[in-house]
Amino acid sequence: MAHIKLPDGLPGIRGPLVFRPETARPLSELAEVLLRGENTLTPAERELIAAYVSARNDCTYCQLSHGAIAAHHLDGNEALVAHVTRDPESAPISAKLKALLGIAGRVAEGGRNVRAADVERARQEGATDTEIHDTILIAAAFCMFNRYVDGLATWTPDDPESYRQRAAGIVRDGYAGLSERLAATERGA
Amino acid sequence: MAHIKLPDGLPGIRGPLVFRPETARPLSELAEVLLRGENTLTPAERELIAAYVSARNDCTYCQLSHGAIAAHHLDGNEALVAHVTRDPESAPISAKLKALLGIAGRVAEGGRNVRAADVERARQEGATDTEIHDTILIAAAFCMFNRYVDGLATWTPDDPESYRQRAAGIVRDGYAGLSERLAATERGA
Repeated sequence: MAHIKLPDGLPGIRGPLVFRPETARPLSELAEVLLRGENTLTPAERELIAAYVSARNDCTYCQLSHGAIAAHHLDGNEALVAHVTRDPESAPISAKLKALLGIAGRVAEGGRNVRAADVERARQEGATDTEIHDTILIAAAFCMFNRYVDGLATWTPDDPESYRQRAAGIVRDGYAGLSERLAATERGA
Repeated sequence: MAHIKLPDGLPGIRGPLVFRPETARPLSELAEVLLRGENTLTPAERELIAAYVSARNDCTYCQLSHGAIAAHHLDGNEALVAHVTRDPESAPISAKLKALLGIAGRVAEGGRNVRAADVERARQEGATDTEIHDTILIAAAFCMFNRYVDGLATWTPDDPESYRQRAAGIVRDGYAGLSERLAATERGA
């Protein structure tokens, strides 16, 4: 049971987003810009960073949600997503993405854990300053989202199909405006 | 030296905010709503939560910045702020704020570390669901801001007076629009 009274039937971050629309707006916009905004990193790469950090932070809801969204962007390749979140270094992904995931893992441990050598490796593999910046901010943002979801003890569904369905909805409609769409559904609109 | 090329002369989060205005906007709006929006927790209480979490995360820039803003709201009582960030349980603050800081410290460790007993204590001391929600989200957000600032290895000034001056500017002008104001100053506007 969640630590506070949240709207019924909404898993993970969705309950708190409807509970507090004032904070939902900037949170949703941050996710939209970071994960879906114009970027030289693909949406799939950015969702993999989100899922990987969530796994490192042991946040099951965020790991499964963003893993499902990454898989949706990767023609349903859930095996690849599982491989990346478990052990990126041995996964069939680019050397640049491996280096960026290395930086993201450091951020999850703590900001001071990112070493110059981690950044230099990413640069050697072709990462730009903006890609390094965005990787660090995506990782940092999921250290927030993960703690928000688990700190409130929100509901984590355990059926993979519901994650696939919500993922399809996010890929179709985006993160921005999510709390308004959920609230409208709650009202039966 | 920062891990990426940031605008010169801007300490802490200010460099990355100017570097990436697309992400600066939702980040600034989140800080504005959480720390200055209408709330039954005072701005001083919320800034103390931010400073305390930043201290737990060993982020010197955020600890000193939000500590200076808290002190500004408390008639310059820097000794109280230092006491709260070091050991809230023995500080001369309300029992409710002590309980909320206890929750915030758990969030810094990890979302799953918040226990029902931590929340129950806050409720016994009069905290509402919204105050508990906001405390958890402020703490989670500073787990992001701290990692953003230190993960990029931004510049941390060491003179207390510069923190007092920036604090006065934030109390006067707010967080929203900060990156636009900094960019305008950069351009000499």
